[in-house]
Amino acid sequence: MEPVDRVRVRAREGDSEVEREDVLAVEEPLEIRIRPADGGQASSFVTTMRTPGNDEELAAGLLFAEGVLESREELIGLERPTDPRIDSELRANVLIAALGADAFARAAKLQRGTVMGSACGVCGKTSIENVIPSDRPPLSGPFRVTPETLYGLPERLRNRQSIFARTGGLHAAGLFSFEGVLEVIREDIGRHNATDKVIGTFLLRGELPLSDRILLVSGRAGFEIVQKAFAAGIPVVASVSAPSSLAVALAETGGVTLVGFLRERRFNVYANAQRVTRNARSAT
Amino acid sequence: MEPVDRVRVRAREGDSEVEREDVLAVEEPLEIRIRPADGGQASSFVTTMRTPGNDEELAAGLLFAEGVLESREELIGLERPTDPRIDSELRANVLIAALGADAFARAAKLQRGTVMGSACGVCGKTSIENVIPSDRPPLSGPFRVTPETLYGLPERLRNRQSIFARTGGLHAAGLFSFEGVLEVIREDIGRHNATDKVIGTFLLRGELPLSDRILLVSGRAGFEIVQKAFAAGIPVVASVSAPSSLAVALAETGGVTLVGFLRERRFNVYANAQRVTRNARSAT
Repeated sequence: MEPVDRVRVRAREGDSEVEREDVLAVEEPLEIRIRPADGGQASSFVTTMRTPGNDEELAAGLLFAEGVLESREELIGLERPTDPRIDSELRANVLIAALGADAFARAAKLQRGTVMGSACGVCGKTSIENVIPSDRPPLSGPFRVTPETLYGLPERLRNRQSIFARTGGLHAAGLFSFEGVLEVIREDIGRHNATDKVIGTFLLRGELPLSDRILLVSGRAGFEIVQKAFAAGIPVVASVSAPSSLAVALAETGGVTLVGFLRERRFNVYANAQRVTRNARSAT
Repeated sequence: MEPVDRVRVRAREGDSEVEREDVLAVEEPLEIRIRPADGGQASSFVTTMRTPGNDEELAAGLLFAEGVLESREELIGLERPTDPRIDSELRANVLIAALGADAFARAAKLQRGTVMGSACGVCGKTSIENVIPSDRPPLSGPFRVTPETLYGLPERLRNRQSIFARTGGLHAAGLFSFEGVLEVIREDIGRHNATDKVIGTFLLRGELPLSDRILLVSGRAGFEIVQKAFAAGIPVVASVSAPSSLAVALAETGGVTLVGFLRERRFNVYANAQRVTRNARSAT
């Protein structure tokens, strides 16, 4: 399946009109199913609207962010359905994750919806406690990033956004080294999928946690983006746009440095500012 | 609960830094519970991250978009929890919808996750068939909008985005008459919540369907935005940004006029262009 699609549009500008071709980002559902690796029936875990491409990375990253996977080893396999009654178009929109016993048990618990305590209501504080139990330490580590390095990130991300450049319709997430080298970029119509694809890429390589990397997202930085970064051990999250109140609170508690409005040689640091040097170019 | 929050940030611009106050959009979970209006236990239906404000409208709009509510009459009441063991902060993040028997049965079916046919996989075509069963006619109606009216909408929405103006962090949705009068605007950190709040406003007033209105969203137009508009009978959906492939396909099938990239006196019409006149100012 292609990540872009072509359609005819009526394009109007001022008082004139033309019919022309336009390129759109493809949006299609991906159903992630789970099954015990040692045999047993597959069942639906979640369906997410996504832009086709890097589906395995998306599934792995999403299962990791949801707390189903705690390590690479628990993901025994990712398979397309082999049932011959399923036609090929549908097959491209389904992935079956074969899980180790512990991971399968966690997923089944989530399927039953018994994880969130619905008896006592919810609030930002309980949301944070669900992500960071009191026995889990905040992220730490010696890495420092300079303002000059941060200033350079958005342009590098933009220059590599191949699908967005054609469609204007995609979110992007990029993972950088602390020296500002872009290692992986992923694009998706779903605002969280691009981040799941990035983290899933490293999960599949067995390279989590990412404790010496910076995550940059093209959109806003909400609670779930910081949650995913924390789970993957990423100590710096930057966004070209605004963070939310709960993203800031989670970043503070989790030891994540949160940078917002990173554009045009400006940014704000909302949490854990100690990782951003005051010296423009030197991390010492 | 307030829709904005104040935090201290380290604001950097070029080589200089100041510590100052910044205003953030609040993000907090809202748990929507359901119960049969004629008595019985409430249970959790869904939790959505939202910006506090217009919670009743959000809950009503979301239950409508999910197909739980088919009319105003089925929503018997919306209550905050009265259990004295729940503290007041949590209470503000919970709404209990008392539903008529048919609506409650539909919700229970969704809770059990038995609605989507997980046996046969998913694809864009089945997603569209789930929204528009073959016995459901596409939207029709005599209303026409002029290019000049469309050009004027984004500025009117922007001028009324009171929270966004301060935080830069919110999505907005506005409902306009075919003459371009802005009737309702709602803002939210969640990209779909603003649209649910707009439609929920009219549901609670008993004023659905909205067959002579235009919906404008500040973000991208994906599948779910068109789905919500179709459910509410809104014949024209405009976005300042890009639509997705599946949004266009759904709009075509559902008789929804889909306008994208509406900005700076330009737009593209992606589906059902017959509702947009070629004459700049006359709808005849």
